[in-house]
Amino acid sequence: MTDQVPARVAVIGLGSMGLGMAQALAAAGHDVVGTDVSAERRAAFADTGGQVAASASAAAAGAEAVVIGVVNAAQVQAALEGSEVSPGALATLAPGAVVIASATVAPDDARRLAAQVESRGHPYLDAPMSGGPDKASAGRLTMMASGSDEAFSRAQPFLEAMTERLFRVGEAPGEGSAIKLVNQLLAGVHIAAACEAVAMGVRLGLDPARVYEVISNAAGASWMFNDRVPHILAGDYAPKSAVGIFIKDLGIVMDTARSERFPTPLAATALSQFLAAASAGFGEDDDSSVVRVFQRLSGIPLPGGETG
Amino acid sequence: MTDQVPARVAVIGLGSMGLGMAQALAAAGHDVVGTDVSAERRAAFADTGGQVAASASAAAAGAEAVVIGVVNAAQVQAALEGSEVSPGALATLAPGAVVIASATVAPDDARRLAAQVESRGHPYLDAPMSGGPDKASAGRLTMMASGSDEAFSRAQPFLEAMTERLFRVGEAPGEGSAIKLVNQLLAGVHIAAACEAVAMGVRLGLDPARVYEVISNAAGASWMFNDRVPHILAGDYAPKSAVGIFIKDLGIVMDTARSERFPTPLAATALSQFLAAASAGFGEDDDSSVVRVFQRLSGIPLPGGETG
Repeated sequence: MTDQVPARVAVIGLGSMGLGMAQALAAAGHDVVGTDVSAERRAAFADTGGQVAASASAAAAGAEAVVIGVVNAAQVQAALEGSEVSPGALATLAPGAVVIASATVAPDDARRLAAQVESRGHPYLDAPMSGGPDKASAGRLTMMASGSDEAFSRAQPFLEAMTERLFRVGEAPGEGSAIKLVNQLLAGVHIAAACEAVAMGVRLGLDPARVYEVISNAAGASWMFNDRVPHILAGDYAPKSAVGIFIKDLGIVMDTARSERFPTPLAATALSQFLAAASAGFGEDDDSSVVRVFQRLSGIPLPGGETG
Repeated sequence: MTDQVPARVAVIGLGSMGLGMAQALAAAGHDVVGTDVSAERRAAFADTGGQVAASASAAAAGAEAVVIGVVNAAQVQAALEGSEVSPGALATLAPGAVVIASATVAPDDARRLAAQVESRGHPYLDAPMSGGPDKASAGRLTMMASGSDEAFSRAQPFLEAMTERLFRVGEAPGEGSAIKLVNQLLAGVHIAAACEAVAMGVRLGLDPARVYEVISNAAGASWMFNDRVPHILAGDYAPKSAVGIFIKDLGIVMDTARSERFPTPLAATALSQFLAAASAGFGEDDDSSVVRVFQRLSGIPLPGGETG
């Protein structure tokens, strides 16, 4: 942290990621007001000493920045413009306040939302994030952000509180979301491949712990293999990141691929595997549950036994 | 290197990997005789000062070990048992000499070949390797080996000359090949995914160098993404490892999956992408040429322009 002046900032969306970001901003000394459509999520932030508001417009009143930590483009839209039941942040933000949009959305959605926000006089930072809830609350996220110099400059004290690593990937909103899309394409394929590979190894009679030991140090390694296979070895499918997240994110990949008329056969196959996991009832479990699709089908022995 | 007694060792198969292994064994002080069905490959070893023989049986005469560096199970079979035109190594090996089999073969083939060799009184090490020609000639391969204590013990001085890292993955031949299969499943999927992701990024207007910079440090990274994407950025498709290698290795994955009645949808999709690359004329080019499938189809701009 440098000697930034603490400032008023709203956080809209207090799910596992938004809550962590709100906590990291508060820990950095900023004056944070959080909001969420769920009273339970608002209470979660209040329980850690956070200030909460009942609507996006109330949270954003007079704020110099609003961090949007919701789940998809429709929720970003509602956070900004409001809905039938709740007014949005753009109604009350301080003049020139920056919008830091960290939901994973299609690049076209990022451009559309940015145009809306900029037409109201606010700079827009297309700033999707990578890293789980633990990294969010520790202020150690990775962000892949694009936007104008003004957007970066106004967002800087808040980005500093939330991120360990910030990639500045371009000057136009949409580029950050495009890089995130490419990252999620790979991440989703790598999780599904890790599960397929471990399942095949077990089917061939290998000890999955030995498979992990060798492959995590060999040319077959991926960040996701190395991170997720320990969940399988522990037989622990409590969600660090749920199957549903990759159904959403690979869905954005496929929607964009269709809109661009561009083939992404591996992403399509991986999405099908996450859907298979959800169809087996694992949609809210850890994304390493794709391996349990193979277990459910074939009865291969996995650590922890059948837990589905 | 420890104080191993130099010993007579045959290397059968002097392709890019076998030649490197023969050179590494010779550099370690062993008395190496190499052979290959191709006179050109024999000359390549002779040109570096190596001793060559015209047949596997001649190379193996009196040897304490034979390292088999050929391409597939049929060639391993021919190296051991000979063919109509050339006698095999088992005819002339010293009593008790160890067979170190480093071709990538299906686990069932490894078990079958081991049974043949062991019935003739020779220990068999199922020792597939990972690493390219440069690592082979530097004696810095990774091997994933399974076999009896006797096989490991007799192979030890030669493994030491060839490997930087040796994973001892089990006591029965077949387990080394099973781990290699799992590794190749992942490696093949990761290469195809890296190409798909870079192509999609380019289609979305991103600079591929920026995509590499961000993703290679993010959760979308894989060993293969980090290793192969620089070939794409350089527009250099001279084969470090050719498309055909993964057609072979994912073919072994699919053959084994069919034989085991086990689904491997991502491996199947990745194989299809390598076949697409071969169908476009890139079969002998670098395996990162899968990205040129997207270029050929859609005309996306890649570094170096269209080179196919």
